[in-house]
Amino acid sequence: MKKALAFDIGGTKIYSTIIDENGKILAEIDKFHTPKTIEGIKEVLTNQILRFENEIDVIAISTAGAVNNENTAVIGSTGNLVKNYRTINFQELSSKKVFLENDANCAAWAEYKIGASQNTSVSVMLTLGTGVGGGIIINNRLLKGKSGAAGEMHFKMFTDKRRKCTCGSWDCFEIYASGTALKLDAEEALHNQDVTTYDVIDGVKKGDKKMTEIFERWQNDITQGIIGLANLFDPDCIVLSGSMAQFVNTKKVEDEVNRNIVTTPTSIRLASAGNYSGMIGAALLAMGGSN
Amino acid sequence: MKKALAFDIGGTKIYSTIIDENGKILAEIDKFHTPKTIEGIKEVLTNQILRFENEIDVIAISTAGAVNNENTAVIGSTGNLVKNYRTINFQELSSKKVFLENDANCAAWAEYKIGASQNTSVSVMLTLGTGVGGGIIINNRLLKGKSGAAGEMHFKMFTDKRRKCTCGSWDCFEIYASGTALKLDAEEALHNQDVTTYDVIDGVKKGDKKMTEIFERWQNDITQGIIGLANLFDPDCIVLSGSMAQFVNTKKVEDEVNRNIVTTPTSIRLASAGNYSGMIGAALLAMGGSN
Repeated sequence: MKKALAFDIGGTKIYSTIIDENGKILAEIDKFHTPKTIEGIKEVLTNQILRFENEIDVIAISTAGAVNNENTAVIGSTGNLVKNYRTINFQELSSKKVFLENDANCAAWAEYKIGASQNTSVSVMLTLGTGVGGGIIINNRLLKGKSGAAGEMHFKMFTDKRRKCTCGSWDCFEIYASGTALKLDAEEALHNQDVTTYDVIDGVKKGDKKMTEIFERWQNDITQGIIGLANLFDPDCIVLSGSMAQFVNTKKVEDEVNRNIVTTPTSIRLASAGNYSGMIGAALLAMGGSN
Repeated sequence: MKKALAFDIGGTKIYSTIIDENGKILAEIDKFHTPKTIEGIKEVLTNQILRFENEIDVIAISTAGAVNNENTAVIGSTGNLVKNYRTINFQELSSKKVFLENDANCAAWAEYKIGASQNTSVSVMLTLGTGVGGGIIINNRLLKGKSGAAGEMHFKMFTDKRRKCTCGSWDCFEIYASGTALKLDAEEALHNQDVTTYDVIDGVKKGDKKMTEIFERWQNDITQGIIGLANLFDPDCIVLSGSMAQFVNTKKVEDEVNRNIVTTPTSIRLASAGNYSGMIGAALLAMGGSN
């Protein structure tokens, strides 16, 4: 059975392990702080590659940032990764094939192959974390677009410039549906810069009326965004992943979405492929292809 | 060379002609008022079929309403067509194969094959008329979704319930980007129910400041919607068709879109496949398949 040396490269941590072509994790999860230089990042990757290169068939990297259609280079914004990250030539780090894909796309692929969207042909995955990631699968292929950057969840929630988005534009879904957005909602409602997403979630659990209102606003914004996605893609399901997904009442969102769409009813599901779905998806894509 | 008997069935008119597999129109365009009963609609179709059935290979119908993935039946909302329109069994009208597709999808396919989006692999077409239609092509295939209803341009422009959409939900792109929307914009700005889209367009041509502001708001709403579509699909181009498209400053919209997206620059183009692109697209799909 084929095996991949998998990496997940994010703004704060790099993870690495060995994964087989069924998506099974075969080794310990190695964990590193993401270095602040590209030399540092290359060193972390090279050390792992030297350790495992003889045992594996391919190197599979789930990374922050958009990845080109050839799966060889990062082309888009990479958030808090070092600025010239996209200049790294990943292939020159190994004689084995090095495959890259965007982390949200990898996670969506893992859900499709071994998780919540198995046996569907059209699905949308939303990663609700500090930001919002998107991975869209259509007719059993990742939606990549002309350059590889498709699936960016930056569509408008208002068109009259209320809240600046991290992307530089205004009022994108990301800045209303992320964990950051929940904190902003709470700051605005309470006129208090120190409130955290934890305070809101904790307040909801304790039955606090104000915190519940803030949370419901955030959940409703997610719902409104999903209505648009459901009308555009007519998906079998929409999968919610990321650290904030667990707090969403999927049944409530699903009912509201299905009352407001012109397409046929869809299903809202929590991700089930686990914390390392990025690496699993990257490995499955690298060994099986996006078909 | 293969030939199709093509129909375009809309809320007010039914058109029909003969089209070859290159998309060339070979006969006169026959034109009928759309009957208000399904028996009446079937009669119009049957008369044309009896006239031309021996000359053609397939019957290709561009129709209002979503069409299933088998291209045999209408499944979704059909606007102002007779209510039980979707109960029509189109195949039983002829011994030749009867192929159906949604009119916006057909028009998008015509643009892709012989019009403005030729030689692209990812494109979004918006039909700006009384309503807004959408046809999306990804990797040289129509985006149909799980049921066939994908490509509906009902994503939110506001999330605080300002303007009721024709679909029953609130603040969809359609109700800010259609001709109807331009009239609503003008009614709101001028506190006058009698103003028409023609008044606005005429005012813009004459340099009227208020009418120009109203028009600019409408064009900006289209721009804001396209920003979201460009981030989701990363398309080679976005094609504008329909009776309202001619008034849009595509260069201005393109510049504004490309300043506000995280994906790579896209191109905004006017449709070029002509007034009968629905029938042409239906014929090309029926004879060539969506590949």
